Amino acid sequence: MLTNDQLAHWDRESFFHPSTHLSQFARGEAPQRIITGGEGVFITDRDGNRLLDGFAGLYCVNAGYGRRQITDAIAKQAHELAYYHSYAGHGTEASITLSKMVMDRAPEGMARVYFGLGGSDANETNIKLVWYYNNIRGLPQKKKIISRWRGYHGSGLVSGSLTGLELFHKKFDLPLSQVVHTEAPFYYRRPDPAMTEADFTAWLLAKLEETIAREGADTIAAFIGEPVLGTGGIVPPPVGYWQGVQEILKRHDILLIVDEVITGFGRLGTMFGSQHYGLQPDLITIAKGLTSAYAPLSGSIVGTKMWDVLCQGTDENGVFGHGWTYSAHPIGAAAGVANLKLIDELGLVENAGKVGAYLRRAMTDAVGDHPNVGEIRGEGMLCAVELTSDRATRASFDPMGSVAPKVAGEMLKRGVIARAMPQADMLGFAPPLCLTTDEADQIARVTGEALRATLG
Amino acid sequence: MLTNDQLAHWDRESFFHPSTHLSQFARGEAPQRIITGGEGVFITDRDGNRLLDGFAGLYCVNAGYGRRQITDAIAKQAHELAYYHSYAGHGTEASITLSKMVMDRAPEGMARVYFGLGGSDANETNIKLVWYYNNIRGLPQKKKIISRWRGYHGSGLVSGSLTGLELFHKKFDLPLSQVVHTEAPFYYRRPDPAMTEADFTAWLLAKLEETIAREGADTIAAFIGEPVLGTGGIVPPPVGYWQGVQEILKRHDILLIVDEVITGFGRLGTMFGSQHYGLQPDLITIAKGLTSAYAPLSGSIVGTKMWDVLCQGTDENGVFGHGWTYSAHPIGAAAGVANLKLIDELGLVENAGKVGAYLRRAMTDAVGDHPNVGEIRGEGMLCAVELTSDRATRASFDPMGSVAPKVAGEMLKRGVIARAMPQADMLGFAPPLCLTTDEADQIARVTGEALRATLG
Ligand SMILES: Cc1ncc(COP(=O)(O)O)c(C=O)c1O
Ligand SMILES: Cc1ncc(COP(=O)(O)O)c(C=O)c1O
Repeated sequence: MLTNDQLAHWDRESFFHPSTHLSQFARGEAPQRIITGGEGVFITDRDGNRLLDGFAGLYCVNAGYGRRQITDAIAKQAHELAYYHSYAGHGTEASITLSKMVMDRAPEGMARVYFGLGGSDANETNIKLVWYYNNIRGLPQKKKIISRWRGYHGSGLVSGSLTGLELFHKKFDLPLSQVVHTEAPFYYRRPDPAMTEADFTAWLLAKLEETIAREGADTIAAFIGEPVLGTGGIVPPPVGYWQGVQEILKRHDILLIVDEVITGFGRLGTMFGSQHYGLQPDLITIAKGLTSAYAPLSGSIVGTKMWDVLCQGTDENGVFGHGWTYSAHPIGAAAGVANLKLIDELGLVENAGKVGAYLRRAMTDAVGDHPNVGEIRGEGMLCAVELTSDRATRASFDPMGSVAPKVAGEMLKRGVIARAMPQADMLGFAPPLCLTTDEADQIARVTGEALRATLG
Repeated sequence: MLTNDQLAHWDRESFFHPSTHLSQFARGEAPQRIITGGEGVFITDRDGNRLLDGFAGLYCVNAGYGRRQITDAIAKQAHELAYYHSYAGHGTEASITLSKMVMDRAPEGMARVYFGLGGSDANETNIKLVWYYNNIRGLPQKKKIISRWRGYHGSGLVSGSLTGLELFHKKFDLPLSQVVHTEAPFYYRRPDPAMTEADFTAWLLAKLEETIAREGADTIAAFIGEPVLGTGGIVPPPVGYWQGVQEILKRHDILLIVDEVITGFGRLGTMFGSQHYGLQPDLITIAKGLTSAYAPLSGSIVGTKMWDVLCQGTDENGVFGHGWTYSAHPIGAAAGVANLKLIDELGLVENAGKVGAYLRRAMTDAVGDHPNVGEIRGEGMLCAVELTSDRATRASFDPMGSVAPKVAGEMLKRGVIARAMPQADMLGFAPPLCLTTDEADQIARVTGEALRATLG
């Protein structure tokens, strides 16, 4: 067994952590936490802390930690066959079974699933598919992608361009020119406080029409969006938004990519967010909930309309030149099969809807009256607490982003993990879908204590 | 247990396979193979075939199949903690230990390792790091990346742009404009048959200088290359190539990204290809051999020169806005730790050098005299047999790419997997590093039989 001190030292001198302050971490100024185990909604660290993980890792451990059904499936697959590739028609029982299970659960009109590793690479695949599709259709100019400010679609060069958050752009020369951003469907931050939700939707749709007119519909291939904005603030769309957007896209022959990396496989209380909001996607991005993060696996579910053109494309051009070495990795596929079965067996989709709603009510009871709480919102097993320096004007704290991390820090001391969302003062909650009402109460109570400890 | 027929059907109707002819596969015209197990250099399929995998999956199962040390480590990690994220200074014993083990094995002058999932996303990370680096240095114009024709660096939009093979560009609008390609260091296909190897190197270096002069050195950030061209043809560089390239890059303040996805962790008979060729990389891409593909894991090893600037960047700009949900995934990290230990214990790096050389000799004995064999080449545990319609003129078959797949098909009937390399008539071999001389003999013998069965 390695001692904490040695590990701690190796960590600081060797490990380039994602989304970390590199120099502070290297100098020992930024915190370090070594996680050792987990069970249900709790994780434990090397220092002996047991923490209620109110964010399910990064909204991904949907089934909860320590599920033997999934870990046994991983172990079994590893012992039988840890790896073979899936190029040129190769597969395994696990990967084929999972493709069937995904298609059985997918919304209407979908044809095939391509497997990748993470949400970012699945969105890369999506853009490749969209470009190929319009090339085969003889529309080589129709290539731009519309995304939304505050959307999150990954951290690669193109997926990070789809992302609409400055933190992921600044100093990286993003977004690349193929991506055009439109307004975020974020009612709390509407441009004019007098707008009703319906007014705001009309304004968003007008802005989208303007963007399309400015760029030219014949240059725009696709629109990408999360059913509920995730990392940009856990924001359900205003009333009528998706119906309006879909109508506009259809009219301009623009594909709809629904990024269900967070919402896929139950988080909104329905199997997919598309079903929740009546979306008819051409492509669906999946990751996180597909395996509950027990092993890396993502996917692109391709609609029939696109699939037919892709098939025509290979008839005309031969083999489809796209693949990752680890596409449909057997370990990920086995984890996915076991995870989707477990979600059904435990009724986690239904639980997400019920206990998620309970969590928002408990949160409202606990902190709804606090003068610095601007809004409590969410959908399914997602909840955000928007903080403001002034409830009446909805003003930000100065500097923005200075308060939520403090509240999250106070929560951590009290044994609950919340996420201080980027570019905002906002606490995010996305617990495992197996959360109980008692655990929801604990999250709400600790949020209240921490808020008062920080802001009075 | 699922029957073959049902699986076969689900596969054709649900599964979008990478690098596959989509319509032929859907119609049942392209082959399907369901892999069930593996041991050493052999895999088995559902139809009861036992095949010697002369390509180690996709040059990745370096330790060989069925290694209990690795699969037990995966099972143990899964049961203890399948997932927690590594953002904001979080880690696990496995991920921290692996970061230390990678740094201990890396060439001189490297500072940290960032973990991703596959080789493509690691190259995405590399380009993000390079752009950030030059922004922090105040050189915002210095951003283009030079890659080589016939290089392979992935299948994403940017990683696929780095790739220099038409199959991965055509109909996808690649390469993107940020990437500039220079000549492939492929002596067999030199422009003038009269050139000596040294002449050819001088020509390549002059072409590189021309490219830099044409684009302007102040617009070029980095050069990326595999120590030995992989998917582009398994081609070791001509004499003096890497020394010459490095001298040019240094002179123009251009970073060197060495893509060691294939060569990392032993394939050339040295721990890294960089050590084999005396390279001094600023960034190293790793994947495949890091875990022997038992679980998805890749990495970017960052040199001290860049790391210092990245640290300065976070001092100036705060948290580094880059990360994948599955960065440093515990299952991949545990597989990596066990795999690197096993490689040492079994002496696989040394074996790769020795048996790899033996394989090329055996191949030369078996097919070196065949009138359609133009060249047999390789380095470490890599071997390519270049086929030609005419040895004297080195002419391609017509159409190019029509013969090697037939030979590979004949080999498969005889129980050995070889890869028909893209854009060529060429057989590629990259067996597990544990290959024995008997198994090398079997590969060579079957290649000879298949070659004669196809071409007489
Ligand atoms: C909606 C959405 N899309 C894509 C991604 C990117 O996924 P990954 O981090 O696995 O690359 C995320 C990650 O949080 C996400 O929330
Ligand atoms: C040299 C090299 N770089 C990068 C890659 C891409 O790796 P992946 O397929 O894991 O994305 C490969 C894959 O074959 C490779 O050979």
